[in-house]
Amino acid sequence: MKALVNLQVIPVGTEVSVSKYIVACEKVLEAAGLHYQLHGNGTNIEGEWDAVFDAVRRCHEVVHEMGAPRIHSMISVGTRTDKEQSLDDKVSSVRQQLM
Amino acid sequence: MKALVNLQVIPVGTEVSVSKYIVACEKVLEAAGLHYQLHGNGTNIEGEWDAVFDAVRRCHEVVHEMGAPRIHSMISVGTRTDKEQSLDDKVSSVRQQLM
Amino acid sequence: MKALVNLQVIPVGTEVSVSKYIVACEKVLEAAGLHYQLHGNGTNIEGEWDAVFDAVRRCHEVVHEMGAPRIHSMISVGTRTDKEQSLDDKVSSVRQQLM
Amino acid sequence: MKALVNLQVIPVGTEVSVSKYIVACEKVLEAAGLHYQLHGNGTNIEGEWDAVFDAVRRCHEVVHEMGAPRIHSMISVGTRTDKEQSLDDKVSSVRQQLM
Repeated sequence: MKALVNLQVIPVGTEVSVSKYIVACEKVLEAAGLHYQLHGNGTNIEGEWDAVFDAVRRCHEVVHEMGAPRIHSMISVGTRTDKEQSLDDKVSSVRQQLM
Repeated sequence: MKALVNLQVIPVGTEVSVSKYIVACEKVLEAAGLHYQLHGNGTNIEGEWDAVFDAVRRCHEVVHEMGAPRIHSMISVGTRTDKEQSLDDKVSSVRQQLM
Repeated sequence: MKALVNLQVIPVGTEVSVSKYIVACEKVLEAAGLHYQLHGNGTNIEGEWDAVFDAVRRCHEVVHEMGAPRIHSMISVGTRTDKEQSLDDKVSSVRQQLM
Repeated sequence: MKALVNLQVIPVGTEVSVSKYIVACEKVLEAAGLHYQLHGNGTNIEGEWDAVFDAVRRCHEVVHEMGAPRIHSMISVGTRTDKEQSLDDKVSSVRQQLM
């Protein structure tokens, strides 16, 4: 089952700048061989369900190992059985209708 | 790693009433032996990370099998390393300060 | 337009325990005269759209005034035009099918 | 108070393809004069709190007027008082550390 995910990792109880933790998560996604794209409110990820969620767990583990005592993540996940659809497909289908 | 989760499963492309799908998810959580609590905007779940997310995936599979062509879920997940904390603990620590 | 909302306020760049900030938000919701219910992963709120979102903004203002330099909130909001439905109705319609 | 928002609008009880509703929301954001960016799991928006949330309410109104009987939106909102930060700034601060 393919999953289209937005992951927003929010370390709590740390310094106010959390970019170093997000950097560490991006490296986890890269190491996992997932297709991902950082944006202003999280990271879009597409891949097989288990591969994606294993990487999300690894993000939590790594961010805790870096010293963040508490992490809240918001995960938006979409699956569908009627057709194959990528994140790019979703954006394209809206953009075409805006033109 | 223990996870405190809120799961909100939103079937798309179905009839307007989606309660039968939520019922199916509650049964998945029950079968998984997880501690969970339905509320007005989702279901709170606590358990080991892998057990929780395996159940979330199973929810998607079951809801698709029931005929929903598309599902969006919102998953809020918290982990912490500084102390053990249950969902009830979180509510209690706020309630005590409100009294 | 009536809104059924789950609000999860996550202060960032603070001490690891954030319950005092959540307490302050509950007081904002109380002062606003909204119907709300704290649970393990946020607070369910029901009310008119503008009243609810004015209170959410006030939560951010109050938590910043208390010293939190950064806040992330996750807001799940549902609206419907086919029928009136409360948060309790949503829970009941699932519970009845579980019995 | 400036807000950095991710908005994900999910119509329920409609046909399985919901892109026409997302198109309508993008037009609402455009008409509101907001800075916004569609991506694979929602739309990033930045602007003054009230302007952003007025537009989100207008999205719900428009999508209901188009015939969707039920809408769930997920709104991630960040505010901060320690410094001015745009969505592009957030992405840049991570990207610089990845190089």
